[in-house]
Amino acid sequence: MKTRIGIFGYGNLGRGVEAAIKQNSDMELVAVFSRRNPDSVKINTDGVKVYSCDDIEKFTDKIDVLILCGGSATDLPVQTPEMAQMFNVIDSFDTHAKIPEHFDAVNEKAEKSGKVAIISVGWDPGMFSLNRLYAGAILPEGKDYTFWGKGVSQGHSDAIRRIDGVVDAKQYTIPVESALDAVRSGSEPSLTTRQKHTRECFVVIEDGADKERIEKEIVTMPNYFADYDTTVHFISKEELEKEHSAIPHGGFVIRSGKTNGGKNSHIIEYSLKLDSNPEFTASVLLCYARAAHRMNKEGMKGCKSVLDGPPSYLSTKSGEELRRELL
Amino acid sequence: MKTRIGIFGYGNLGRGVEAAIKQNSDMELVAVFSRRNPDSVKINTDGVKVYSCDDIEKFTDKIDVLILCGGSATDLPVQTPEMAQMFNVIDSFDTHAKIPEHFDAVNEKAEKSGKVAIISVGWDPGMFSLNRLYAGAILPEGKDYTFWGKGVSQGHSDAIRRIDGVVDAKQYTIPVESALDAVRSGSEPSLTTRQKHTRECFVVIEDGADKERIEKEIVTMPNYFADYDTTVHFISKEELEKEHSAIPHGGFVIRSGKTNGGKNSHIIEYSLKLDSNPEFTASVLLCYARAAHRMNKEGMKGCKSVLDGPPSYLSTKSGEELRRELL
Repeated sequence: MKTRIGIFGYGNLGRGVEAAIKQNSDMELVAVFSRRNPDSVKINTDGVKVYSCDDIEKFTDKIDVLILCGGSATDLPVQTPEMAQMFNVIDSFDTHAKIPEHFDAVNEKAEKSGKVAIISVGWDPGMFSLNRLYAGAILPEGKDYTFWGKGVSQGHSDAIRRIDGVVDAKQYTIPVESALDAVRSGSEPSLTTRQKHTRECFVVIEDGADKERIEKEIVTMPNYFADYDTTVHFISKEELEKEHSAIPHGGFVIRSGKTNGGKNSHIIEYSLKLDSNPEFTASVLLCYARAAHRMNKEGMKGCKSVLDGPPSYLSTKSGEELRRELL
Repeated sequence: MKTRIGIFGYGNLGRGVEAAIKQNSDMELVAVFSRRNPDSVKINTDGVKVYSCDDIEKFTDKIDVLILCGGSATDLPVQTPEMAQMFNVIDSFDTHAKIPEHFDAVNEKAEKSGKVAIISVGWDPGMFSLNRLYAGAILPEGKDYTFWGKGVSQGHSDAIRRIDGVVDAKQYTIPVESALDAVRSGSEPSLTTRQKHTRECFVVIEDGADKERIEKEIVTMPNYFADYDTTVHFISKEELEKEHSAIPHGGFVIRSGKTNGGKNSHIIEYSLKLDSNPEFTASVLLCYARAAHRMNKEGMKGCKSVLDGPPSYLSTKSGEELRRELL
């Protein structure tokens, strides 16, 4: 019996989930839900239909887990609690500061409906959070470091696009190699924002727009760029499309800690290098859909995160197979 | 109420657990058990006594979790099932091929006694196994690589010491940097034993012993060295003690996988760089002692591994704190 998946929202992330389902033979795509006119949405799975979000209630008996692929700013705070009234749900809510509030809202609904909701799934929050948990528990005396990149920051790219005279832009967040090396040495350095990451911007401007002004507006932009060493490259629309259309990302979670009264140092490092941020995130979401389905079948309910639930529930393999093959 | 810990076996690992307890304010060392004459064993915690292993039965009401610090060859296959009849137990059983058999033996006893036993805890098996599980579940189409080192292999050092004319020896297992780079490139290379690791030996010999013969015996030794590029250095006893008395180790678990019909590559890498292998392993054992105690208080029983049980149980923090601080 396959786990029947519904995809709610068909952007980059939704397409990533659809692709991931094809890699997991215990999973089956049942329906895609979109706010657009369903007839206008073409998907990549034969025999599966696109429905309007308004029709979702008809699917309560047909879907085991609904994967919410909307954005954290306005979609998920509304959709996740609402859908948890009817379905086991997974979301990738990533506004770190608002996670406790989101958790409470979702938990209330999922406790009532008897469903399992796993929120903030992906890599940060998600696998990075999990690695911070493990490393911090093992080495209680130590320091955590998180570096992001090299990768595209959608928020920073958007911020550049809002500048007058800018047609399009891509921004890469890049970890500083010497800062990574300092952390790996075990010296537990204190690092400023500027010392940890640089920002590199590829910008397409309107004909005759003032490069000097635009560059200055970028590098001095508060919160986004002012605290970083930022490089700006003006390029053509064609070059942007040819060289910068991918959505790579990644990063590093490093814990440096000591044992035996400070005598010995240890470094735990987890890193990701991703060609496609949404496809990887989608692959994580699908693993947790498997776990949510299993947890709910066992009678669990309420809101969870990647920090809850047995790791073995992510796998298709039995406990016996896992012990034999992975331990 | 602290978790009351007993240490069973007081070698490097037992001393590591003792040191780790001092870093965790929710943990308390209650007793150390040794096969040696208790009066001859000096420990590093004031007010805590050393007892004979024969007295362990008197402690069933005084210890929440017993951490077994014996060896995998002959100690743990006997001790873990036996102790699981009386205590929640943690062991670091690391004979990979015999884990399923060990699991069954321990599970039978722990199911009967109603205790929780977590076996094969440490870093490999342990944190490495866990990372193989997570990475394999996220990227089902891909390939796993494990590299060990740079670190001291006790088994290989012992093998050298058994050669006629050898007084003492230390052997380092070293991952080959170019092999690591090839794996990180995402090309999913097939690597031979020789391509993945080299072995470096520091050997002290008797006066007048035949260096040429000893070196040949080392590099041609089947299973241990014949399949590797091995370097042998003859050094003085003083130099061995001065430069090679530490027990560092570490390694890398890397999964290289693809999404979206092979279109995009992703690399998940977990690595450890440890100044002291036994102290780090002990720190992992203690985390799982915390989890075992909590699991047992909630009514769970039987044999478990690091692949079971919620990650959050390793931490002293509440679910709310974890969500706020780590997600």
